[in-house]
Amino acid sequence: MPHFADFLTSRIAETRSVACVGLDPVLESLPDAVRVRHHDPVEAVRAFCLGVIDAVADAVPAVKPQSACFERYGSRGVAVLEAVCSHARSRGLCVVLDAKRGDIGVSAQHYAAAAVHAGAHAITVNAYLGFDTVEPYLDAGLGVFALVRTSNPGSDAVQDPRLHDGRTVAAMMAERVAALGAARRGASGLSDVGAVVGATKAAQGVELRRLMPSQVFLVPGYGAQGGTAADIRALARAGAKDPAEAGVLVNASRSVIYARGVGAWQENIRTAAATMTEELGTAVAGEPR
Amino acid sequence: MPHFADFLTSRIAETRSVACVGLDPVLESLPDAVRVRHHDPVEAVRAFCLGVIDAVADAVPAVKPQSACFERYGSRGVAVLEAVCSHARSRGLCVVLDAKRGDIGVSAQHYAAAAVHAGAHAITVNAYLGFDTVEPYLDAGLGVFALVRTSNPGSDAVQDPRLHDGRTVAAMMAERVAALGAARRGASGLSDVGAVVGATKAAQGVELRRLMPSQVFLVPGYGAQGGTAADIRALARAGAKDPAEAGVLVNASRSVIYARGVGAWQENIRTAAATMTEELGTAVAGEPR
Repeated sequence: MPHFADFLTSRIAETRSVACVGLDPVLESLPDAVRVRHHDPVEAVRAFCLGVIDAVADAVPAVKPQSACFERYGSRGVAVLEAVCSHARSRGLCVVLDAKRGDIGVSAQHYAAAAVHAGAHAITVNAYLGFDTVEPYLDAGLGVFALVRTSNPGSDAVQDPRLHDGRTVAAMMAERVAALGAARRGASGLSDVGAVVGATKAAQGVELRRLMPSQVFLVPGYGAQGGTAADIRALARAGAKDPAEAGVLVNASRSVIYARGVGAWQENIRTAAATMTEELGTAVAGEPR
Repeated sequence: MPHFADFLTSRIAETRSVACVGLDPVLESLPDAVRVRHHDPVEAVRAFCLGVIDAVADAVPAVKPQSACFERYGSRGVAVLEAVCSHARSRGLCVVLDAKRGDIGVSAQHYAAAAVHAGAHAITVNAYLGFDTVEPYLDAGLGVFALVRTSNPGSDAVQDPRLHDGRTVAAMMAERVAALGAARRGASGLSDVGAVVGATKAAQGVELRRLMPSQVFLVPGYGAQGGTAADIRALARAGAKDPAEAGVLVNASRSVIYARGVGAWQENIRTAAATMTEELGTAVAGEPR
Protein backbone atom coordinates (compact mmCIF):
# COMPACT_ATOMS: atom_id res chain seq x y z
CA MET A 1 0.00 0.00 0.00
CA PRO A 2 1.52 3.37 -0.94
CA HIS A 3 2.60 5.49 1.99
CA PHE A 4 0.59 8.71 2.13
CA ALA A 5 3.22 10.93 3.73
CA ASP A 6 5.85 9.76 1.26
CA PHE A 7 3.52 10.47 -1.65
CA LEU A 8 2.77 13.92 -0.30
CA THR A 9 6.45 14.59 0.26
CA SER A 10 7.28 13.61 -3.31
CA ARG A 11 4.56 15.93 -4.59
CA ILE A 12 5.95 18.77 -2.46
CA ALA A 13 9.42 18.12 -3.82
CA GLU A 14 8.15 18.15 -7.40
CA THR A 15 6.15 21.35 -7.06
CA ARG A 16 8.48 22.98 -4.53
CA SER A 17 5.33 24.09 -2.77
CA VAL A 18 3.67 23.36 0.56
CA ALA A 19 0.48 25.09 -0.50
CA CYS A 20 -2.79 23.21 -0.42
CA VAL A 21 -5.77 24.67 -2.23
CA GLY A 22 -9.01 24.28 -0.31
CA LEU A 23 -12.03 23.44 -2.43
CA ASP A 24 -14.79 25.08 -0.38
CA PRO A 25 -17.16 26.09 -3.16
CA VAL A 26 -19.99 28.40 -2.14
CA LEU A 27 -22.39 29.27 -4.92
CA GLU A 28 -22.62 32.98 -4.19
CA SER A 29 -18.84 33.36 -4.42
CA LEU A 30 -18.26 31.58 -7.74
CA PRO A 31 -16.89 33.63 -10.65
CA ASP A 32 -19.53 35.20 -12.86
CA ALA A 33 -18.08 33.32 -15.83
CA VAL A 34 -18.99 30.03 -14.17
CA ARG A 35 -22.38 31.09 -12.93
CA VAL A 36 -23.44 32.42 -16.32
CA ARG A 37 -22.68 29.12 -17.99
CA HIS A 38 -24.16 26.84 -15.33
CA HIS A 39 -27.52 27.80 -13.94
CA ASP A 40 -27.85 24.63 -11.91
CA PRO A 41 -26.01 25.19 -8.59
CA VAL A 42 -24.58 21.68 -8.41
CA GLU A 43 -23.31 21.85 -11.98
CA ALA A 44 -21.77 25.25 -11.27
CA VAL A 45 -19.94 23.82 -8.26
CA ARG A 46 -18.71 20.92 -10.36
CA ALA A 47 -17.44 23.11 -13.20
CA PHE A 48 -15.78 25.51 -10.80
CA CYS A 49 -13.94 22.83 -8.83
CA LEU A 50 -12.73 21.04 -11.96
CA GLY A 51 -11.52 24.41 -13.26
CA VAL A 52 -9.66 25.18 -10.03
CA ILE A 53 -7.99 21.78 -10.17
CA ASP A 54 -6.84 22.33 -13.75
CA ALA A 55 -5.53 25.76 -12.80
CA VAL A 56 -3.39 24.60 -9.88
CA ALA A 57 -2.50 20.98 -10.70
CA ASP A 58 1.08 21.79 -11.72
CA ALA A 59 1.61 24.46 -9.09
CA VAL A 60 0.72 22.86 -5.77
CA PRO A 61 0.98 19.39 -4.26
CA ALA A 62 -2.51 19.00 -2.88
CA VAL A 63 -6.13 20.02 -2.78
CA LYS A 64 -8.50 19.77 0.16
CA PRO A 65 -12.18 19.41 -0.74
CA GLN A 66 -14.45 20.50 2.12
CA SER A 67 -17.02 17.73 2.30
CA ALA A 68 -19.70 19.95 3.84
CA CYS A 69 -19.83 22.20 0.77
CA PHE A 70 -20.81 19.22 -1.36
CA GLU A 71 -22.98 17.36 1.15
CA ARG A 72 -25.24 20.37 1.45
CA TYR A 73 -26.57 19.46 -2.01
CA GLY A 74 -27.44 15.94 -0.90
CA SER A 75 -26.66 12.89 -3.01
CA ARG A 76 -26.06 15.00 -6.13
CA GLY A 77 -23.49 17.01 -4.24
CA VAL A 78 -21.76 13.86 -3.07
CA ALA A 79 -21.60 12.66 -6.68
CA VAL A 80 -19.84 15.93 -7.54
CA LEU A 81 -17.45 15.47 -4.62
CA GLU A 82 -16.55 12.07 -6.03
CA ALA A 83 -15.99 13.57 -9.49
CA VAL A 84 -13.84 16.32 -8.00
CA CYS A 85 -11.66 13.92 -6.02
CA SER A 86 -11.33 11.66 -9.03
CA HIS A 87 -10.30 14.52 -11.31
CA ALA A 88 -7.77 15.86 -8.81
CA ARG A 89 -6.30 12.41 -8.45
CA SER A 90 -6.04 11.98 -12.20
CA ARG A 91 -4.15 15.28 -12.37
CA GLY A 92 -1.58 13.93 -9.94
CA LEU A 93 -2.74 15.95 -6.96
CA CYS A 94 -2.77 14.64 -3.44
CA VAL A 95 -6.40 14.68 -2.28
CA VAL A 96 -7.06 15.45 1.39
CA LEU A 97 -10.76 15.03 2.10
CA ASP A 98 -11.75 17.52 4.78
CA ALA A 99 -14.57 15.56 6.38
CA LYS A 100 -13.59 15.69 10.08
CA ARG A 101 -15.16 12.31 10.65
CA GLY A 102 -15.14 10.64 14.03
CA ASP A 103 -17.10 7.62 15.17
CA ILE A 104 -16.62 4.25 16.82
CA GLY A 105 -14.59 1.65 15.02
CA VAL A 106 -17.20 -0.07 12.88
CA SER A 107 -18.66 3.24 11.70
CA ALA A 108 -15.16 4.57 11.11
CA GLN A 109 -14.61 1.60 8.80
CA HIS A 110 -17.62 2.73 6.78
CA TYR A 111 -16.42 6.33 6.67
CA ALA A 112 -13.01 5.11 5.55
CA ALA A 113 -14.65 3.07 2.79
CA ALA A 114 -16.58 6.16 1.71
CA ALA A 115 -13.39 8.24 1.53
CA VAL A 116 -11.59 5.56 -0.48
CA HIS A 117 -14.62 5.25 -2.74
CA ALA A 118 -14.55 9.00 -3.32
CA GLY A 119 -10.89 8.87 -4.26
CA ALA A 120 -9.21 10.55 -1.30
CA HIS A 121 -5.61 9.89 -0.30
CA ALA A 122 -6.11 11.25 3.21
CA ILE A 123 -8.90 12.45 5.48
CA THR A 124 -9.25 14.80 8.42
CA VAL A 125 -10.57 13.08 11.55
CA ASN A 126 -11.85 14.16 14.93
CA ALA A 127 -10.44 11.91 17.63
CA TYR A 128 -12.57 13.04 20.60
CA LEU A 129 -13.94 9.48 20.68
CA GLY A 130 -10.44 8.11 21.13
CA PHE A 131 -7.66 6.90 18.94
CA ASP A 132 -9.11 3.44 18.41
CA THR A 133 -11.51 5.35 16.17
CA VAL A 134 -8.62 6.61 14.01
CA GLU A 135 -7.06 3.26 13.15
CA PRO A 136 -9.71 2.10 10.65
CA TYR A 137 -8.76 4.95 8.30
CA LEU A 138 -5.12 3.91 8.40
CA ASP A 139 -6.07 0.28 7.89
CA ALA A 140 -7.96 1.37 4.76
CA GLY A 141 -4.76 2.90 3.37
CA LEU A 142 -5.65 6.52 4.03
CA GLY A 143 -3.45 9.16 5.53
CA VAL A 144 -5.02 10.87 8.51
CA PHE A 145 -4.93 14.41 9.88
CA ALA A 146 -6.29 14.40 13.42
CA LEU A 147 -7.68 17.64 14.83
CA VAL A 148 -5.35 18.92 17.52
CA ARG A 149 -5.56 22.71 17.67
CA THR A 150 -7.91 24.80 15.59
CA SER A 151 -8.19 28.54 15.01
CA ASN A 152 -11.90 29.20 15.37
CA PRO A 153 -13.06 31.46 18.23
CA GLY A 154 -14.65 28.74 20.34
CA SER A 155 -11.73 26.31 20.18
CA ASP A 156 -9.93 27.76 23.20
CA ALA A 157 -12.67 26.68 25.58
CA VAL A 158 -12.28 23.02 24.67
CA GLN A 159 -8.68 22.63 23.43
CA ASP A 160 -6.86 24.98 25.77
CA PRO A 161 -7.85 23.96 29.33
CA ARG A 162 -4.96 22.54 31.34
CA LEU A 163 -4.96 19.02 32.65
CA HIS A 164 -3.84 18.23 36.20
CA ASP A 165 -0.33 17.56 34.88
CA GLY A 166 -0.04 20.94 33.19
CA ARG A 167 -0.60 19.80 29.62
CA THR A 168 -3.36 21.43 27.63
CA VAL A 169 -6.08 19.24 26.14
CA ALA A 170 -4.54 19.94 22.73
CA ALA A 171 -1.09 18.82 23.94
CA MET A 172 -2.63 15.62 25.27
CA MET A 173 -4.16 15.01 21.85
CA ALA A 174 -0.81 15.81 20.23
CA GLU A 175 0.95 13.17 22.31
CA ARG A 176 -1.65 10.60 21.31
CA VAL A 177 -1.21 11.53 17.66
CA ALA A 178 2.55 11.12 17.95
CA ALA A 179 2.17 7.77 19.70
CA LEU A 180 -0.22 6.39 17.09
CA GLY A 181 1.94 7.74 14.29
CA ALA A 182 5.28 6.44 15.55
CA ALA A 183 4.93 3.11 13.77
CA ARG A 184 3.61 4.72 10.61
CA ARG A 185 6.63 6.67 9.42
CA GLY A 186 7.71 6.33 5.83
CA ALA A 187 10.97 6.74 3.95
CA SER A 188 10.51 10.51 4.28
CA GLY A 189 10.63 10.24 8.04
CA LEU A 190 7.12 11.63 8.18
CA SER A 191 4.13 9.70 9.47
CA ASP A 192 0.83 8.80 7.84
CA VAL A 193 -0.76 10.17 11.00
CA GLY A 194 -0.66 13.94 10.76
CA ALA A 195 -2.30 16.73 12.71
CA VAL A 196 -4.48 19.75 12.05
CA VAL A 197 -2.88 22.78 13.70
CA GLY A 198 -4.30 26.22 12.98
CA ALA A 199 -2.05 28.93 11.58
CA THR A 200 -3.21 31.55 14.04
CA LYS A 201 -2.14 29.51 17.07
CA ALA A 202 1.56 29.79 16.24
CA ALA A 203 2.59 30.54 19.82
CA GLN A 204 1.30 27.13 20.83
CA GLY A 205 2.55 25.68 17.57
CA VAL A 206 6.15 25.55 18.75
CA GLU A 207 5.15 23.30 21.64
CA LEU A 208 2.95 21.16 19.41
CA ARG A 209 5.82 20.72 16.94
CA ARG A 210 8.05 19.58 19.80
CA LEU A 211 5.44 16.97 20.72
CA MET A 212 4.87 15.90 17.10
CA PRO A 213 8.25 15.94 15.32
CA SER A 214 7.28 13.35 12.70
CA GLN A 215 3.83 14.67 11.88
CA VAL A 216 2.75 16.56 8.81
CA PHE A 217 0.81 19.57 10.07
CA LEU A 218 -2.19 20.42 7.95
CA VAL A 219 -2.49 24.12 8.62
CA PRO A 220 -5.78 25.82 7.84
CA GLY A 221 -6.35 29.51 8.27
CA TYR A 222 -3.75 30.90 5.91
CA GLY A 223 -4.78 33.95 3.93
CA ALA A 224 -8.40 34.97 4.34
CA GLN A 225 -8.56 33.57 7.88
CA GLY A 226 -5.61 35.68 9.06
CA GLY A 227 -2.65 33.31 9.28
CA THR A 228 0.61 34.66 7.85
CA ALA A 229 3.83 33.16 6.54
CA ALA A 230 5.51 34.12 9.81
CA ASP A 231 2.92 32.07 11.70
CA ILE A 232 3.77 29.10 9.51
CA ARG A 233 7.46 29.30 10.33
CA ALA A 234 6.71 28.39 13.94
CA LEU A 235 5.00 25.21 12.81
CA ALA A 236 7.66 23.89 10.42
CA ARG A 237 10.12 21.24 11.50
CA ALA A 238 13.30 22.79 12.83
CA GLY A 239 16.17 23.06 10.40
CA ALA A 240 14.17 22.20 7.31
CA LYS A 241 16.31 23.13 4.30
CA ASP A 242 13.66 22.35 1.77
CA PRO A 243 9.86 22.52 1.62
CA ALA A 244 9.69 18.74 1.43
CA GLU A 245 11.38 18.48 4.84
CA ALA A 246 9.21 21.05 6.59
CA GLY A 247 6.36 18.74 7.53
CA VAL A 248 3.68 21.31 6.80
CA LEU A 249 0.89 21.49 4.28
CA VAL A 250 -0.67 24.93 4.40
CA ASN A 251 -4.21 25.37 3.22
CA ALA A 252 -5.79 28.46 1.78
CA SER A 253 -9.26 28.43 0.32
CA ARG A 254 -10.98 31.75 -0.28
CA SER A 255 -7.78 33.77 -0.88
CA VAL A 256 -6.88 31.44 -3.75
CA ILE A 257 -10.07 30.09 -5.27
CA TYR A 258 -11.81 33.46 -5.30
CA ALA A 259 -8.71 35.45 -6.23
CA ARG A 260 -9.40 38.60 -8.23
CA GLY A 261 -7.04 39.95 -10.83
CA VAL A 262 -6.59 41.18 -14.33
CA GLY A 263 -6.84 37.77 -15.99
CA ALA A 264 -9.51 35.18 -16.51
CA TRP A 265 -10.64 33.48 -13.30
CA GLN A 266 -8.39 30.44 -13.68
CA GLU A 267 -5.36 32.62 -14.37
CA ASN A 268 -6.07 34.61 -11.21
CA ILE A 269 -6.28 31.41 -9.20
CA ARG A 270 -3.02 30.15 -10.62
CA THR A 271 -1.33 33.45 -9.83
CA ALA A 272 -2.65 33.40 -6.26
CA ALA A 273 -1.41 29.83 -5.77
CA ALA A 274 2.01 30.77 -7.10
CA THR A 275 2.19 33.80 -4.80
CA MET A 276 1.25 31.68 -1.82
CA THR A 277 3.88 29.12 -2.75
CA GLU A 278 6.49 31.87 -2.91
CA GLU A 279 5.56 33.27 0.51
CA LEU A 280 5.48 29.84 2.11
CA GLY A 281 8.75 28.69 0.59
CA THR A 282 10.52 31.44 2.45
CA ALA A 283 8.72 30.63 5.66
CA VAL A 284 9.29 26.90 5.80
CA ALA A 285 12.81 26.63 4.46
CA GLY A 286 14.34 29.59 6.24
CA GLU A 287 15.33 31.67 3.27
CA PRO A 288 14.07 32.63 -0.17
CA ARG A 289 14.27 29.82 -2.65
CA MET B 1 -39.84 26.64 14.41
CA PRO B 2 -40.97 23.46 16.22
CA HIS B 3 -38.98 22.64 19.31
CA PHE B 4 -37.10 19.38 18.90
CA ALA B 5 -37.08 18.28 22.53
CA ASP B 6 -40.79 18.99 22.86
CA PHE B 7 -41.52 16.99 19.72
CA LEU B 8 -39.43 14.09 21.00
CA THR B 9 -41.14 14.28 24.38
CA SER B 10 -44.57 14.14 22.76
CA ARG B 11 -43.50 11.13 20.74
CA ILE B 12 -42.23 9.42 23.92
CA ALA B 13 -45.52 10.16 25.65
CA GLU B 14 -47.52 8.73 22.75
CA THR B 15 -45.50 5.54 22.45
CA ARG B 16 -44.67 5.27 26.16
CA SER B 17 -41.22 4.27 25.01
CA VAL B 18 -37.73 5.78 25.28
CA ALA B 19 -36.32 3.28 22.79
CA CYS B 20 -34.59 4.52 19.67
CA VAL B 21 -33.96 2.07 16.86
CA GLY B 22 -30.55 2.51 15.27
CA LEU B 23 -30.51 2.09 11.51
CA ASP B 24 -26.97 0.77 11.01
CA PRO B 25 -27.50 -1.47 8.00
CA VAL B 26 -24.61 -3.75 7.11
CA LEU B 27 -25.17 -5.88 4.06
CA GLU B 28 -23.84 -9.13 5.50
CA SER B 29 -26.27 -8.94 8.42
CA LEU B 30 -29.48 -8.26 6.52
CA PRO B 31 -32.23 -10.91 6.69
CA ASP B 32 -32.10 -13.54 3.97
CA ALA B 33 -35.59 -12.52 2.89
CA VAL B 34 -34.29 -9.06 1.99
CA ARG B 35 -31.09 -10.22 0.36
CA VAL B 36 -32.85 -12.74 -1.84
CA ARG B 37 -35.17 -10.09 -3.24
CA HIS B 38 -32.58 -7.34 -3.70
CA HIS B 39 -29.30 -8.34 -5.26
CA ASP B 40 -28.05 -4.78 -5.46
CA PRO B 41 -26.50 -3.91 -2.07
CA VAL B 42 -27.82 -0.35 -2.02
CA GLU B 43 -31.33 -1.49 -2.89
CA ALA B 44 -31.14 -4.15 -0.20
CA VAL B 45 -30.15 -1.52 2.36
CA ARG B 46 -33.01 0.70 1.24
CA ALA B 47 -35.62 -2.06 1.42
CA PHE B 48 -34.36 -3.22 4.79
CA CYS B 49 -34.41 0.23 6.38
CA LEU B 50 -37.88 1.05 5.06
CA GLY B 51 -39.05 -2.29 6.40
CA VAL B 52 -37.55 -1.64 9.83
CA ILE B 53 -39.24 1.76 9.94
CA ASP B 54 -42.61 0.25 9.08
CA ALA B 55 -42.10 -2.40 11.75
CA VAL B 56 -41.35 0.01 14.59
CA ALA B 57 -43.13 3.25 13.66
CA ASP B 58 -45.95 2.76 16.14
CA ALA B 59 -43.80 1.22 18.84
CA VAL B 60 -40.94 3.65 19.41
CA PRO B 61 -40.52 7.42 19.30
CA ALA B 62 -37.38 7.65 17.18
CA VAL B 63 -34.93 6.13 14.77
CA LYS B 64 -31.25 6.93 14.43
CA PRO B 65 -29.77 6.36 10.96
CA GLN B 66 -25.98 5.92 11.10
CA SER B 67 -24.75 8.11 8.27
CA ALA B 68 -21.56 6.11 7.75
CA CYS B 69 -23.49 2.98 6.75
CA PHE B 70 -25.04 4.88 3.86
CA GLU B 71 -22.08 7.08 2.90
CA ARG B 72 -19.98 4.01 2.31
CA TYR B 73 -22.01 3.49 -0.88
CA GLY B 74 -21.22 6.97 -2.13
CA SER B 75 -23.82 9.24 -3.66
CA ARG B 76 -26.26 6.36 -4.18
CA GLY B 77 -26.02 5.53 -0.50
CA VAL B 78 -26.68 9.15 0.44
CA ALA B 79 -29.78 9.10 -1.77
CA VAL B 80 -30.97 6.08 0.21
CA LEU B 81 -30.24 7.86 3.49
CA GLU B 82 -32.44 10.71 2.31
CA ALA B 83 -35.22 8.27 1.38
CA VAL B 84 -34.91 6.55 4.75
CA CYS B 85 -35.10 9.81 6.72
CA SER B 86 -38.01 10.97 4.62
CA HIS B 87 -39.93 7.74 5.13
CA ALA B 88 -39.31 7.74 8.88
CA ARG B 89 -40.49 11.30 9.08
CA SER B 90 -43.65 10.51 7.12
CA ARG B 91 -44.38 7.70 9.57
CA GLY B 92 -44.27 10.20 12.43
CA LEU B 93 -40.91 9.11 13.80
CA CYS B 94 -38.38 11.47 15.25
CA VAL B 95 -35.26 11.21 13.06
CA VAL B 96 -31.88 11.59 14.76
CA LEU B 97 -29.16 11.59 12.13
CA ASP B 98 -26.07 10.01 13.64
CA ALA B 99 -23.43 11.89 11.65
CA LYS B 100 -21.13 13.15 14.44
CA ARG B 101 -20.31 16.22 12.40
CA GLY B 102 -17.98 18.89 13.69
CA ASP B 103 -16.40 21.74 11.77
CA ILE B 104 -15.97 25.50 11.93
CA GLY B 105 -19.06 27.67 11.67
CA VAL B 106 -19.41 28.11 7.93
CA SER B 107 -18.87 24.41 7.27
CA ALA B 108 -21.24 23.55 10.10
CA GLN B 109 -23.86 25.64 8.30
CA HIS B 110 -23.41 23.44 5.26
CA TYR B 111 -23.64 20.24 7.31
CA ALA B 112 -26.78 21.58 8.96
CA ALA B 113 -28.27 22.30 5.54
CA ALA B 114 -27.41 18.74 4.48
CA ALA B 115 -29.14 17.28 7.54
CA VAL B 116 -32.24 19.41 6.98
CA HIS B 117 -32.21 18.45 3.30
CA ALA B 118 -32.07 14.77 4.29
CA GLY B 119 -35.05 15.20 6.58
CA ALA B 120 -33.48 14.88 10.03
CA HIS B 121 -35.00 16.44 13.15
CA ALA B 122 -31.75 16.25 15.09
CA ILE B 123 -28.10 15.42 14.54
CA THR B 124 -25.20 14.15 16.62
CA VAL B 125 -22.26 16.56 16.72
CA ASN B 126 -18.67 16.45 17.89
CA ALA B 127 -17.82 19.68 19.70
CA TYR B 128 -14.04 19.26 19.99
CA LEU B 129 -13.73 22.36 17.80
CA GLY B 130 -15.73 24.37 20.31
CA PHE B 131 -19.33 25.23 20.89
CA ASP B 132 -19.44 28.02 18.33
CA THR B 133 -19.40 25.11 15.90
CA VAL B 134 -22.62 23.71 17.40
CA GLU B 135 -24.80 26.80 17.06
CA PRO B 136 -25.33 26.61 13.27
CA TYR B 137 -27.25 23.35 13.69
CA LEU B 138 -29.56 24.95 16.23
CA ASP B 139 -29.98 27.99 14.01
CA ALA B 140 -31.08 25.64 11.23
CA GLY B 141 -33.85 24.29 13.48
CA LEU B 142 -32.17 20.99 14.32
CA GLY B 143 -31.91 19.41 17.72
CA VAL B 144 -28.35 18.54 18.66
CA PHE B 145 -26.75 15.73 20.63
CA ALA B 146 -23.18 16.67 21.48
CA LEU B 147 -20.71 13.89 22.22
CA VAL B 148 -19.82 13.98 25.89
CA ARG B 149 -18.94 10.46 27.07
CA THR B 150 -18.79 7.43 24.81
CA SER B 151 -18.45 3.74 25.52
CA ASN B 152 -15.79 2.64 23.05
CA PRO B 153 -12.49 1.29 24.44
CA GLY B 154 -10.34 4.26 23.43
CA SER B 155 -12.64 6.93 24.81
CA ASP B 156 -11.16 6.89 28.32
CA ALA B 157 -7.82 8.22 27.10
CA VAL B 158 -9.40 11.38 25.70
CA GLN B 159 -12.58 11.94 27.70
CA ASP B 160 -11.49 10.81 31.15
CA PRO B 161 -8.29 12.75 31.97
CA ARG B 162 -8.71 15.22 34.82
CA LEU B 163 -8.29 18.93 34.37
CA HIS B 164 -6.36 21.03 36.88
CA ASP B 165 -9.64 21.80 38.68
CA GLY B 166 -10.56 18.16 39.10
CA ARG B 167 -13.17 17.94 36.37
CA THR B 168 -12.77 15.31 33.70
CA VAL B 169 -12.63 16.41 30.07
CA ALA B 170 -16.11 14.89 29.66
CA ALA B 171 -17.44 16.91 32.62
CA MET B 172 -16.01 20.06 31.07
CA MET B 173 -17.84 19.23 27.85
CA ALA B 174 -21.00 18.53 29.84
CA GLU B 175 -20.90 21.95 31.47
CA ARG B 176 -20.51 23.58 28.06
CA VAL B 177 -23.46 21.59 26.75
CA ALA B 178 -25.59 22.69 29.69
CA ALA B 179 -24.55 26.32 29.23
CA LEU B 180 -25.35 26.34 25.53
CA GLY B 181 -28.62 24.53 26.13
CA ALA B 182 -29.90 26.70 28.97
CA ALA B 183 -31.62 29.15 26.66
CA ARG B 184 -33.00 26.39 24.45
CA ARG B 185 -35.44 24.69 26.83
CA GLY B 186 -38.94 24.01 25.60
CA ALA B 187 -42.31 23.55 27.28
CA SER B 188 -41.16 20.09 28.32
CA GLY B 189 -38.33 21.62 30.36
CA LEU B 190 -35.86 19.77 28.16
CA SER B 191 -33.37 21.49 25.90
CA ASP B 192 -32.78 21.22 22.17
CA VAL B 193 -29.12 20.73 23.09
CA GLY B 194 -28.74 17.16 24.27
CA ALA B 195 -25.77 14.93 24.96
CA VAL B 196 -24.45 11.55 23.91
CA VAL B 197 -23.63 9.54 27.04
CA GLY B 198 -22.77 5.88 26.70
CA ALA B 199 -24.78 3.28 28.57
CA THR B 200 -21.74 1.46 29.87
CA LYS B 201 -20.37 4.54 31.66
CA ALA B 202 -23.22 4.61 34.17
CA ALA B 203 -20.96 5.29 37.15
CA GLN B 204 -19.95 8.56 35.54
CA GLY B 205 -23.47 9.04 34.28
CA VAL B 206 -24.75 10.15 37.68
CA GLU B 207 -22.28 13.01 37.71
CA LEU B 208 -23.03 13.90 34.09
CA ARG B 209 -26.77 13.97 34.84
CA ARG B 210 -26.10 16.35 37.74
CA LEU B 211 -24.22 18.66 35.35
CA MET B 212 -26.86 18.36 32.60
CA PRO B 213 -30.29 18.30 34.31
CA SER B 214 -32.17 19.67 31.29
CA GLN B 215 -30.50 17.61 28.60
CA VAL B 216 -31.89 14.65 26.74
CA PHE B 217 -29.25 11.95 26.90
CA LEU B 218 -28.92 9.97 23.71
CA VAL B 219 -27.61 6.70 25.06
CA PRO B 220 -25.94 4.31 22.64
CA GLY B 221 -24.65 0.95 23.65
CA TYR B 222 -27.83 -0.70 24.87
CA GLY B 223 -28.21 -4.37 24.03
CA ALA B 224 -25.53 -5.77 21.78
CA GLN B 225 -22.92 -3.33 23.09
CA GLY B 226 -23.44 -4.43 26.70
CA GLY B 227 -25.48 -1.66 28.34
CA THR B 228 -28.35 -2.84 30.56
CA ALA B 229 -31.58 -1.33 31.85
CA ALA B 230 -29.90 -0.88 35.23
CA ASP B 231 -27.21 1.23 33.55
CA ILE B 232 -29.91 3.41 32.05
CA ARG B 233 -31.48 4.11 35.42
CA ALA B 234 -28.36 5.99 36.48
CA LEU B 235 -28.73 8.31 33.48
CA ALA B 236 -32.41 9.21 33.83
CA ARG B 237 -33.53 12.42 35.46
CA ALA B 238 -34.17 11.96 39.17
CA GLY B 239 -37.79 11.41 40.17
CA ALA B 240 -39.09 10.83 36.67
CA LYS B 241 -42.56 9.32 37.02
CA ASP B 242 -43.06 8.77 33.34
CA PRO B 243 -40.83 7.93 30.37
CA ALA B 244 -41.49 11.37 28.89
CA GLU B 245 -39.91 13.01 31.94
CA ALA B 246 -36.82 10.84 32.05
CA GLY B 247 -34.74 12.80 29.57
CA VAL B 248 -33.24 9.74 27.95
CA LEU B 249 -33.47 8.27 24.49
CA VAL B 250 -31.86 4.85 24.49
CA ASN B 251 -30.55 3.47 21.25
CA ALA B 252 -30.20 -0.15 20.25
CA SER B 253 -29.22 -1.18 16.78
CA ARG B 254 -28.11 -4.75 16.24
CA SER B 255 -30.17 -6.29 19.07
CA VAL B 256 -33.34 -4.91 17.46
CA ILE B 257 -32.80 -4.70 13.71
CA TYR B 258 -31.20 -8.13 13.45
CA ALA B 259 -33.48 -9.76 16.01
CA ARG B 260 -34.08 -13.46 15.44
CA GLY B 261 -37.28 -15.20 16.34
CA VAL B 262 -40.09 -17.43 15.19
CA GLY B 263 -41.77 -14.83 12.99
CA ALA B 264 -41.00 -13.03 9.78
CA TRP B 265 -38.12 -10.58 10.07
CA GLN B 266 -40.28 -7.51 10.60
CA GLU B 267 -42.29 -9.27 13.30
CA ASN B 268 -39.09 -10.19 15.10
CA ILE B 269 -37.94 -6.58 14.97
CA ARG B 270 -41.23 -5.33 16.31
CA THR B 271 -41.08 -7.86 19.15
CA ALA B 272 -37.52 -6.85 20.02
CA ALA B 273 -38.48 -3.17 20.07
CA ALA B 274 -41.43 -3.91 22.33
CA THR B 275 -39.27 -5.94 24.69
CA MET B 276 -36.73 -3.14 24.86
CA THR B 277 -39.49 -0.62 25.57
CA GLU B 278 -40.72 -2.80 28.40
CA GLU B 279 -37.28 -3.13 29.98
CA LEU B 280 -36.56 0.57 29.66
CA GLY B 281 -39.92 1.70 31.01
CA THR B 282 -39.09 0.03 34.29
CA ALA B 283 -35.64 1.56 34.35
CA VAL B 284 -36.48 5.17 33.61
CA ALA B 285 -39.71 5.58 35.52
CA GLY B 286 -38.75 3.73 38.66
CA GLU B 287 -41.29 0.95 38.57
CA PRO B 288 -43.04 -1.30 36.05
CA ARG B 289 -45.56 0.54 33.95
